[in-house]
Amino acid sequence: MNMQFTDGGICAPKGYKAAGVHCGIRKNKTKKDLALIVSDVEAAAAGVYTQNKVKGAPIAVTKSHLAASSGYARAIVCNSGNANTCNPNGVEIAEQTCALVGSTLQLPAESVLVASTGVIGMELSIEPFQKGVPEAAGLLSYQGSEDAALAIMTTDTVKKETAVSFLLGGKPCRIGAIAKGSGMIHPNMATLLCFITTDAAITPAMLQKALKAAVDESLNQVSIDGDTSTNDMALILANGLAGNPVIDAEGADYDDFVKALTAVCVELAKKIAADGEGATKLLCCKVSGAPDVKTARTVAKSVISSSLFKAAMFGGDANWGRILCAMGYADAEYDISKTFVALSSAAGRVEVCQNAAALPFSEEEAAKILKEKEIHIEINLHQGGASASAWGCDLTYDYVKINGDYRS
Amino acid sequence: MNMQFTDGGICAPKGYKAAGVHCGIRKNKTKKDLALIVSDVEAAAAGVYTQNKVKGAPIAVTKSHLAASSGYARAIVCNSGNANTCNPNGVEIAEQTCALVGSTLQLPAESVLVASTGVIGMELSIEPFQKGVPEAAGLLSYQGSEDAALAIMTTDTVKKETAVSFLLGGKPCRIGAIAKGSGMIHPNMATLLCFITTDAAITPAMLQKALKAAVDESLNQVSIDGDTSTNDMALILANGLAGNPVIDAEGADYDDFVKALTAVCVELAKKIAADGEGATKLLCCKVSGAPDVKTARTVAKSVISSSLFKAAMFGGDANWGRILCAMGYADAEYDISKTFVALSSAAGRVEVCQNAAALPFSEEEAAKILKEKEIHIEINLHQGGASASAWGCDLTYDYVKINGDYRS
Repeated sequence: MNMQFTDGGICAPKGYKAAGVHCGIRKNKTKKDLALIVSDVEAAAAGVYTQNKVKGAPIAVTKSHLAASSGYARAIVCNSGNANTCNPNGVEIAEQTCALVGSTLQLPAESVLVASTGVIGMELSIEPFQKGVPEAAGLLSYQGSEDAALAIMTTDTVKKETAVSFLLGGKPCRIGAIAKGSGMIHPNMATLLCFITTDAAITPAMLQKALKAAVDESLNQVSIDGDTSTNDMALILANGLAGNPVIDAEGADYDDFVKALTAVCVELAKKIAADGEGATKLLCCKVSGAPDVKTARTVAKSVISSSLFKAAMFGGDANWGRILCAMGYADAEYDISKTFVALSSAAGRVEVCQNAAALPFSEEEAAKILKEKEIHIEINLHQGGASASAWGCDLTYDYVKINGDYRS
Repeated sequence: MNMQFTDGGICAPKGYKAAGVHCGIRKNKTKKDLALIVSDVEAAAAGVYTQNKVKGAPIAVTKSHLAASSGYARAIVCNSGNANTCNPNGVEIAEQTCALVGSTLQLPAESVLVASTGVIGMELSIEPFQKGVPEAAGLLSYQGSEDAALAIMTTDTVKKETAVSFLLGGKPCRIGAIAKGSGMIHPNMATLLCFITTDAAITPAMLQKALKAAVDESLNQVSIDGDTSTNDMALILANGLAGNPVIDAEGADYDDFVKALTAVCVELAKKIAADGEGATKLLCCKVSGAPDVKTARTVAKSVISSSLFKAAMFGGDANWGRILCAMGYADAEYDISKTFVALSSAAGRVEVCQNAAALPFSEEEAAKILKEKEIHIEINLHQGGASASAWGCDLTYDYVKINGDYRS
């Protein structure tokens, strides 16, 4: 399949407008805190959500709206600065927010999906939305992706946008996305906040299936700190304006769509990991030679989640014993005795472990390799044909600093 | 049961000598790196071990010696500075070490148990043991607990010793212990390194059962960084010199023994958590009102394991949303909606959450409470009578510093 990365983020596909404004949920007036994404026409919609028992009120409301509209939607509204979680009136506020967007844009409230991110357990009032929603609606534009991406950031230091274009049933088709996520990142069957649009034509059922497949291979393989958030959510809208034959079953078109969607999600996964709270390095761990994909995923995620390994990467210390240790406590059944490990970066590649025992290597060369911003950990289990990747970041002084006093 | 904490550590019970020397495994000559603990007479013995797939060679050797001797032993030898893990000749070195102790003390090699802690994947030679074992044997004394405790330390900043005395079948009986552990601490069904002695008379089978019960409630509830070590091991020797009627079944004496053993292990758990790598604060989380003990343990351990909560405690930030978040992703089935949370310390107590929602509280008072060295997190699930505790520490700049360059 021929596929290219392109500009435009969440507005890259046909028929999507977006906006981001400051409405007053955050005290800092220079920081946008409300994003609005709207499709010109009705779109098939799907979502995956956190598995945390504590769930933000917006998750309940988004799920119930998707059910009420049989998997179709027109708009997504998202605030930052307050997670609307563990609030007694959380569902009420989330419903009122959707109703506000609906009345402003003349849509039924059920066609509006809602998300929140920020501090847990802090009261949220509808007032800032009463000011912000009409303002955002007035600013909606086909070039609004960046503003929306900025408005959903919390401790993120860079905005996360991406888009691809490809052919689907002979028609040019696009997938665009924005995401946020920097701490409390250890998605479990769902993810951080990620909003995706496409002009592909696809049924809600196939869209849900495609989203789950793509997220399992990408965003669910990111970990910053082992903490699964209460508000993780990935939503996708598919408005069909590309004019491709509707994807309503598995087949070549569905496979191409999943490939493109996965590429978008992998790109966001890497952006999120690289911008992990306090991170100075992106860690990419690829496990191959595994008996099955689940084992490969579990092992890769265990390695990039290890606090000890993450701290060693911050220090540029090729302490591969910590990789073996993290592989060993991963919740998977396999033979660890054939393990091969290499570390690489733009500065070179060094093989450090074979058959789960030390290989002689140059510490100076390893130190040079580990000075780079993007480190690859290559693991071969030598017992099958399955592989998977996971993405993380180093553990630094700044992670501690950022989280030592997040609320102030 | 009447029980008192007492001095003497691992030599507090009758008939145990210990020693600690520098034999050359560590470069720093002022740091002891070899410990020896010997019972005057044959002792029932039991152990629990790491569940990591990668296991230090000493674990295989200790298990096989305990099996060969039907659960009896005379001595424990332990080195620090090298984990003897992921070494091609690791089992050979561990066997040779036991043989050396055996020939020096005129014991069969099978009555010697062996443990190691330190860097993974670094070659280990028998030479330092050839020098160190005879030297340690010559220094064995009934006052040697402190030297042994010092010799098993790695990144620990303080030695961990404790002992209790109590009556068993009318006879004064003691349990003493030493332990090490500061990083790579997230025991799974076993623990860090912990050596326990007692002069109680008890069969190997009942000793094993008692050890597992005590460790599950104490050392297995400690987490420093979520990393389960490859070398975790807790060993106990019971030489019967207290003269109590042999405990060979459940009953009042067994219950008293388990209570005393648990008290010893809880004391060590707290010492280990307080000395977590880089820690400035001990976190004690007690979960009550749980439907069963397993749920209480899982929830308590999840809270003290959360990087975000640990960083908030370092910063003295009463961010209770992170407690709820960590409770929510704990692998347990329960109703989180009735959750009550309070934070306390020597400086006071503040209730922060009821029915999983915010309670109004004074931030100044909370800040004062969180300035103390020992913080208690009190959680009530309000759905049963079971409770459990877990112990951890804050996440600090120094944790990152210590682990950024451990090997140098």
